[in-house]
Amino acid sequence: MMSAGNAAYAEFALATAREAGAAILPHFRVPIAVDDKGGARGYDPVTAADRGAEDVIRKAIMREWPGHGIEGEERGVETGTAPLTWVIDPIDGTRSFILGQLHWATLIALNDGTRPVVGVVHQPYVEESFVACDGASEWRRHDQRRRLATRRCARVEDAIVATTDPRHFVSARQMHAWRAATDGTRLVRYGGDCYCYTQVAMGLTDIVIETGLQPYDVQALIPLIEYAGGVMTNWEGGSCQRGGDVLACGDPALHAEILRRIALR
Amino acid sequence: MMSAGNAAYAEFALATAREAGAAILPHFRVPIAVDDKGGARGYDPVTAADRGAEDVIRKAIMREWPGHGIEGEERGVETGTAPLTWVIDPIDGTRSFILGQLHWATLIALNDGTRPVVGVVHQPYVEESFVACDGASEWRRHDQRRRLATRRCARVEDAIVATTDPRHFVSARQMHAWRAATDGTRLVRYGGDCYCYTQVAMGLTDIVIETGLQPYDVQALIPLIEYAGGVMTNWEGGSCQRGGDVLACGDPALHAEILRRIALR
Repeated sequence: MMSAGNAAYAEFALATAREAGAAILPHFRVPIAVDDKGGARGYDPVTAADRGAEDVIRKAIMREWPGHGIEGEERGVETGTAPLTWVIDPIDGTRSFILGQLHWATLIALNDGTRPVVGVVHQPYVEESFVACDGASEWRRHDQRRRLATRRCARVEDAIVATTDPRHFVSARQMHAWRAATDGTRLVRYGGDCYCYTQVAMGLTDIVIETGLQPYDVQALIPLIEYAGGVMTNWEGGSCQRGGDVLACGDPALHAEILRRIALR
Repeated sequence: MMSAGNAAYAEFALATAREAGAAILPHFRVPIAVDDKGGARGYDPVTAADRGAEDVIRKAIMREWPGHGIEGEERGVETGTAPLTWVIDPIDGTRSFILGQLHWATLIALNDGTRPVVGVVHQPYVEESFVACDGASEWRRHDQRRRLATRRCARVEDAIVATTDPRHFVSARQMHAWRAATDGTRLVRYGGDCYCYTQVAMGLTDIVIETGLQPYDVQALIPLIEYAGGVMTNWEGGSCQRGGDVLACGDPALHAEILRRIALR
């Protein structure tokens, strides 16, 4: 459908993510009293940042692409007249944000009605961005740009695994998948949120396994991984664009192997 | 001993950490083939960065303070003629570095022969620094500076906990301490390395518990936490400057309560 190229959408998404960053940063690392939640002042930095950023993004979309749909974390779904829908997470990694850590970002995806075809990850504090469109994934910072490619890593024993939190794997099914994706690997690292995925695209992480995700958690990341040469699906190998269980690998052969292990029950 | 003030040492440490950053950054996020470890090229980015940075720091210390001792991760201990010793970790958070994530930094401490009195944490990619000396802890970035203060949080149920990796708690004693520091808390977050501690100093994390640390992992962090109003000790409440088991809290009352829970066996 959009064979003419999605670069204009990607540049819009990046500019908009930057605008959102300006709404987020005043709330980053603002210390508040621990008993202030919903108190007199009722100021909760991450909620303020999340809502402020989503409002900025929604306003920009409605201004530039009034016919497009919008699906966001904070303010739900708005159906458009075009088949195109923007899927947005103003702050992915809210816990990292709450602690003043660095593994969080604004995610903006464009879905063409069948799948996400543009993905932008923007970390406004670090001032770095990951941009995927038209079959290419790119890292950008200030005036620097680099084309991204995943790493070849077919063997499980060579693989570096990242996940946000192993406590998310609770059911027998989830625990089985967790073991299938981590047993015998070289290194398993916790705490990455969207940075788990950006680093697969950069060729520095081989496997990301997660569960319980939302569409807005994953849609910007799917083109980023795929256009860098990786594969990102659910645990059955189907599309993960509606969230849920996710397996992302830099090497398609490794992805196939982990799917095989997950299927062996 | 150094009542005249340590600001000159702190500024030296920060300038030196920045020099080290210039040696580190060319190795950050360099994708290498997974089977290249010790291969023909034998290039391992984190080892190259770690050693290059430590050499830069050692050279600067020997030039500026030739009588001082040096204790570093990569190249061991060099005893000085002065009672002063620099304790350095060129890259704290090497796993985060390997994955191309952001929670790593250069740590430089100055120990006066009894305890660390200067601490610098510098993340060269993010270009932010945390500087502790003369009873004050500060965050710096570009031309911005902010005096840091920990958060009052006396109640365990309000506390946010950070640790690098829960799998480090293996023995019965370690598991007991882990539960004592995390049970009933508001939120436990994994994956922070030195950022766990910087965020206590910033007033955004209340408890850090870790085990198996080295002196160079902790000495820069002790003055950072203490001068911001927090407490950082081993699990018996004694000095943790030789590493080992560490408990850091923003609120001294919370620290006392967690020590009490750890002691209840």
